[in-house]
Amino acid sequence: MIVRPRMHWLRMLFVWRGSVMPRIFPRLGFFLALACLAVVLQPLPFNLKFNLREGPLGLLGVALAIFLGFRNSTAYDRFWEARKLWGSLQIVSRSFMRQALSLPTPALSTEERREVTDLLRALALTLNHQLRGTPVALDTLPPGVRACVEQTGQRAPRVILALADWVARMRREGRLGELLVTPLEANLDRFSEVLGGCERIASTPIPYVYSVMLHRTVYIYSLLLPFALAGSLGWSTPLVSVFVTYTFIALDMVTSELEDPFGTEPNDLPLDALTRNIERAVLELAGEPLPPPTRPDDSFLLT
Amino acid sequence: MIVRPRMHWLRMLFVWRGSVMPRIFPRLGFFLALACLAVVLQPLPFNLKFNLREGPLGLLGVALAIFLGFRNSTAYDRFWEARKLWGSLQIVSRSFMRQALSLPTPALSTEERREVTDLLRALALTLNHQLRGTPVALDTLPPGVRACVEQTGQRAPRVILALADWVARMRREGRLGELLVTPLEANLDRFSEVLGGCERIASTPIPYVYSVMLHRTVYIYSLLLPFALAGSLGWSTPLVSVFVTYTFIALDMVTSELEDPFGTEPNDLPLDALTRNIERAVLELAGEPLPPPTRPDDSFLLT
Amino acid sequence: MIVRPRMHWLRMLFVWRGSVMPRIFPRLGFFLALACLAVVLQPLPFNLKFNLREGPLGLLGVALAIFLGFRNSTAYDRFWEARKLWGSLQIVSRSFMRQALSLPTPALSTEERREVTDLLRALALTLNHQLRGTPVALDTLPPGVRACVEQTGQRAPRVILALADWVARMRREGRLGELLVTPLEANLDRFSEVLGGCERIASTPIPYVYSVMLHRTVYIYSLLLPFALAGSLGWSTPLVSVFVTYTFIALDMVTSELEDPFGTEPNDLPLDALTRNIERAVLELAGEPLPPPTRPDDSFLLT
Amino acid sequence: MIVRPRMHWLRMLFVWRGSVMPRIFPRLGFFLALACLAVVLQPLPFNLKFNLREGPLGLLGVALAIFLGFRNSTAYDRFWEARKLWGSLQIVSRSFMRQALSLPTPALSTEERREVTDLLRALALTLNHQLRGTPVALDTLPPGVRACVEQTGQRAPRVILALADWVARMRREGRLGELLVTPLEANLDRFSEVLGGCERIASTPIPYVYSVMLHRTVYIYSLLLPFALAGSLGWSTPLVSVFVTYTFIALDMVTSELEDPFGTEPNDLPLDALTRNIERAVLELAGEPLPPPTRPDDSFLLT
Amino acid sequence: MIVRPRMHWLRMLFVWRGSVMPRIFPRLGFFLALACLAVVLQPLPFNLKFNLREGPLGLLGVALAIFLGFRNSTAYDRFWEARKLWGSLQIVSRSFMRQALSLPTPALSTEERREVTDLLRALALTLNHQLRGTPVALDTLPPGVRACVEQTGQRAPRVILALADWVARMRREGRLGELLVTPLEANLDRFSEVLGGCERIASTPIPYVYSVMLHRTVYIYSLLLPFALAGSLGWSTPLVSVFVTYTFIALDMVTSELEDPFGTEPNDLPLDALTRNIERAVLELAGEPLPPPTRPDDSFLLT
Repeated sequence: MIVRPRMHWLRMLFVWRGSVMPRIFPRLGFFLALACLAVVLQPLPFNLKFNLREGPLGLLGVALAIFLGFRNSTAYDRFWEARKLWGSLQIVSRSFMRQALSLPTPALSTEERREVTDLLRALALTLNHQLRGTPVALDTLPPGVRACVEQTGQRAPRVILALADWVARMRREGRLGELLVTPLEANLDRFSEVLGGCERIASTPIPYVYSVMLHRTVYIYSLLLPFALAGSLGWSTPLVSVFVTYTFIALDMVTSELEDPFGTEPNDLPLDALTRNIERAVLELAGEPLPPPTRPDDSFLLT
Repeated sequence: MIVRPRMHWLRMLFVWRGSVMPRIFPRLGFFLALACLAVVLQPLPFNLKFNLREGPLGLLGVALAIFLGFRNSTAYDRFWEARKLWGSLQIVSRSFMRQALSLPTPALSTEERREVTDLLRALALTLNHQLRGTPVALDTLPPGVRACVEQTGQRAPRVILALADWVARMRREGRLGELLVTPLEANLDRFSEVLGGCERIASTPIPYVYSVMLHRTVYIYSLLLPFALAGSLGWSTPLVSVFVTYTFIALDMVTSELEDPFGTEPNDLPLDALTRNIERAVLELAGEPLPPPTRPDDSFLLT
Repeated sequence: MIVRPRMHWLRMLFVWRGSVMPRIFPRLGFFLALACLAVVLQPLPFNLKFNLREGPLGLLGVALAIFLGFRNSTAYDRFWEARKLWGSLQIVSRSFMRQALSLPTPALSTEERREVTDLLRALALTLNHQLRGTPVALDTLPPGVRACVEQTGQRAPRVILALADWVARMRREGRLGELLVTPLEANLDRFSEVLGGCERIASTPIPYVYSVMLHRTVYIYSLLLPFALAGSLGWSTPLVSVFVTYTFIALDMVTSELEDPFGTEPNDLPLDALTRNIERAVLELAGEPLPPPTRPDDSFLLT
Repeated sequence: MIVRPRMHWLRMLFVWRGSVMPRIFPRLGFFLALACLAVVLQPLPFNLKFNLREGPLGLLGVALAIFLGFRNSTAYDRFWEARKLWGSLQIVSRSFMRQALSLPTPALSTEERREVTDLLRALALTLNHQLRGTPVALDTLPPGVRACVEQTGQRAPRVILALADWVARMRREGRLGELLVTPLEANLDRFSEVLGGCERIASTPIPYVYSVMLHRTVYIYSLLLPFALAGSLGWSTPLVSVFVTYTFIALDMVTSELEDPFGTEPNDLPLDALTRNIERAVLELAGEPLPPPTRPDDSFLLT
Repeated sequence: MIVRPRMHWLRMLFVWRGSVMPRIFPRLGFFLALACLAVVLQPLPFNLKFNLREGPLGLLGVALAIFLGFRNSTAYDRFWEARKLWGSLQIVSRSFMRQALSLPTPALSTEERREVTDLLRALALTLNHQLRGTPVALDTLPPGVRACVEQTGQRAPRVILALADWVARMRREGRLGELLVTPLEANLDRFSEVLGGCERIASTPIPYVYSVMLHRTVYIYSLLLPFALAGSLGWSTPLVSVFVTYTFIALDMVTSELEDPFGTEPNDLPLDALTRNIERAVLELAGEPLPPPTRPDDSFLLT
């Protein structure tokens, strides 16, 4: 995800990386050439029978507005729901840690506190990698957790189970008292909800047919556009049609990035930074030394 | 549901199966022929009195945009709510299993664990078939559950009742302790909510009148379109009008698929795969051997 | 509400009853005649000063799209919220029944079970009639409940109070144990929420001014339309203008039906069928004989 | 708020009061005169250089649609959220009363019951007046509550505190038993949420800049419109332009009424009637005599 | 945030400060000059080949409507969610205070009450400054809290931890009784949710690419507009094109203000005033003297 200090409005017009330009530049070049061709061909007699004008393209605008508008808001909703789920993961991790630290008598020993911290950090880490489909480098995991997740495919559920085991053990040892069991159980359930919600988003894309229909509409529209404009606009055609094409193609590309918010493209969620935040929040509550926060790279890009 | 690895943008333009093309191809052929006819008839004197142009069709665009936009977002909301409910089913099944496994003393015996696993798997299976209106093949059900659902029409509610009986039995035998009753009861309630929510979607279609009005608007619009364009576009008419018609008819068809998300059309929810996921999640927690996950077929289609 | 098996797309174009056509047919006839008049009057010199064309009507499209789109989605939201509330009523009734059946010792006697069943059925029945403003035929109520609702205007709240009394009695007799009180109380609260939500929808229409403004815009637009089209479309005018008029008037009428989802018009909620569903769900759990489900009539209409 | 029995569609076209017409009539007169002036001035040579036509106004339609559509749905959401909060107030008041009536032993004495009734009625009354910024006529308050709210500015919070005191007193006297404390506390919290939600709506208007921008766009658009139309429409201009102007100005006015739903304009929430409903619901549960419900006045207006 | 008494509709047309005019005035001047240039250049033969007209700009309207509409509603949703979170902060602070005041025996001493009051006030203050990225002036914090937040970066979480410590201490001293622990714990969790929600909004902007695309579309559109209009509108061009440009640029600027609702621009949330409100609500419940509420300054501006 790209985070940038607020930028002067003039400079923003020339931003390159954050505007999907690098990826669509070649296509725009093609459409520019096509527009020039359309202007050159315009006066030929051959063209009189294929008398395209811009009026009918306006009719296509209805379909285009519905496709683009729908896909855009749906993709953003997925992005934002995913962000909310990771926000909940941080909130619940903090609450869990807080409740563990308030165990009545005896309070947690240093090792026991380390155990909880490790599990909570491991939960964020394994969920991160499960969603991105990347392997967890086992040595980034806290040592105490490695054994428990090594032999399983579904690592994040396994870590939740380990947290549940911890709660059960504390309960069996009579250290939770009466009143801490219910909130700790509730937080385990909330961990499951976060996990389930993330899995739902990751495993259920927007129905494929929408991508196909939007894609087709955008590109056929862009192909027709210069021929429709050439008759009346003359040499303004390349400028106008490439600009219109840019807005549609760029929006199509952005929504296909946001649609799967757990990917690693520039506009996806910065899971690494969010994971680090959760680790820092948990460690600070436990009074442990903190790893540095993730900083954006030179392009203001967080991963 | 069709899941596909991300595809090159050029290849996506020629996708066949995932774009409802197979079903609407004959209609598009008809409209293509009609458009050619419109161009041929255009210069006849007979036509002068029926002087259709594209301007007035733009006025129809308002109604069309409202109908299509509304129906599309409503259908998708139903699809997504259904997906969320099945996501909850997985989350609650996992929580229920987890809580059952953490029974204090004595822990569940192998048979008792198997009993819970069977019931949870049966719940997903019977709900799947109840929503699709297909009969459950009794031999796909875990053996322990067959008897209990054989004599009833409403099989999923019956399985929830069997789970409630199990909780009541455990409680009567004093094996739940004080603190597990409330969360188990809460999960039974959540099962009921999932069931009720799915039944609501399955039994209450979008008011029928919307389909009728949208359908009419789309087809009459498509019938008028070539005649409106022929006067000014000449032989570009077939291209433009068939393309516009494609976008509207395809969207109409997609929304009528998504509207009933529990069907078995290509863009419906893959209940079989979701059921299998739930079975695997429950069995893994119980430490049992896992059936293989459902894989998409050659067309990337999940059922 | 009209439920129909999925229909062939061609046949759907000629549906009569489900498309509010019966109610708006006379008006459409009027607008057809008006359009013919507009074409005939067109060449008269008198018309030259009132030179209406279709361009300016496009400006009205903005207002029309906002009015129709807003009112449509608002009306449908009310419809769907009402449907959700009745879905909750079914879910909560089932949960309440399930919890009542799981009373520890002694289990419910046959009469006691009947009492709960009667109250739950009566709740759905009285709420149905309260919302529709129809009198409850007292003999359709279960006999045990008649007395309690006879003397009151607000019958559904009274039935909830009777359910609360039943819970209080069971509690006083020590038959609920420790753990059933809270969920039963919670379900009483949810009954209240369903009741309150339905009353809110029934008693608070969409602000009246929206109906008035939409109505005016639609009809004045329809009056101006043929005169605006006649100049350029010639004898295509009646076809196009009546079709445009149909879409707007039909949508106006549909939204005014859905806006009050508890009415008895064709597109309203089928409260009778939903009530019967709830009765069947409760009776099946109690192991009692079931009344037949409500079936759609010849026009596929549920009431 | 105006509630009207469903009206014949023809009569609805001529409704006066419910359509904000009384307030905008003078302005429409001004725009009518302006339109006539535009037609008269049209042929003057002076006009040739300021050759306004309706095409460019269509470009403004984009901004206008966004402003009006956004403001309208936002204003209505506020209205409807406010209505839901008052619906919750009724639901929670009923639940609180029901729970108070089910106190185990000894049941509430008549005075004690009266005390609860008075407090619940006072809560609705004081909240009503706090939101409207009107002083509570102390003599409309139940006598037992007057003393407690006399010396404070924030009267509704004070009444909630008095209800909390009542719960605390009952608890101290040991009359709540174990199981009634939690739901009563939960209801106190919900009262706080209703109060907080209403205060949030009342104290945070839609950002002011939207009103300003919408207002400007609407009025400048209306000023330009007749000049843009006069060239081509001739004497149809006044009719069309006043009608278009009416729809925009009326919608602007309606949204500015709904935006602050606690006001006393015709389309605001009828807080007096809602308060009375709550009083009646509480009193009926307590078995007390009921005040009459609020009836709409001659203009079908509820306050 | 600007709050203004309702203003006469005529005067509202000339509002200066609340309409982002001061910030965009220079740009509008530039576009005015550009429009005059376009009219002057129009008749030159050089222009014949670049024959821009307003028709094609209408095609851009689709993209512009999607970008502006999406960004506007998304930005407002963030603003409103942030407002709701601060509303929750007030509600939960009040509930927490109320529950602390109802401690059974012995009731809170004056110092203990002061301690709770201080912590709740400090929570609002530190959250305010954390979100705005401004340093807390330590001397505005209640003295009892200073020590605890001095050495940490994350001050608001630290205050929540101090509240949790207070609850734990009261519990250990046996002063909460059985029934107050659960609601106090629940309120601690809600504080965490408010904190987490605010952090989520503050740390996750709308994906940057939207700003860039919208920005470009708006400014390139505005650059093209006068040339497109000059051919047909003559000297009306500057008026119309500057007005259209104003609406788009102003909306772009407003949404970029609302997008980050915790800033200090005129349309952002008035965190100082909201903090003061929370302090007053808590202090009034505790019976302490109240600081004056924050009043809007001369420009009706709250910070």
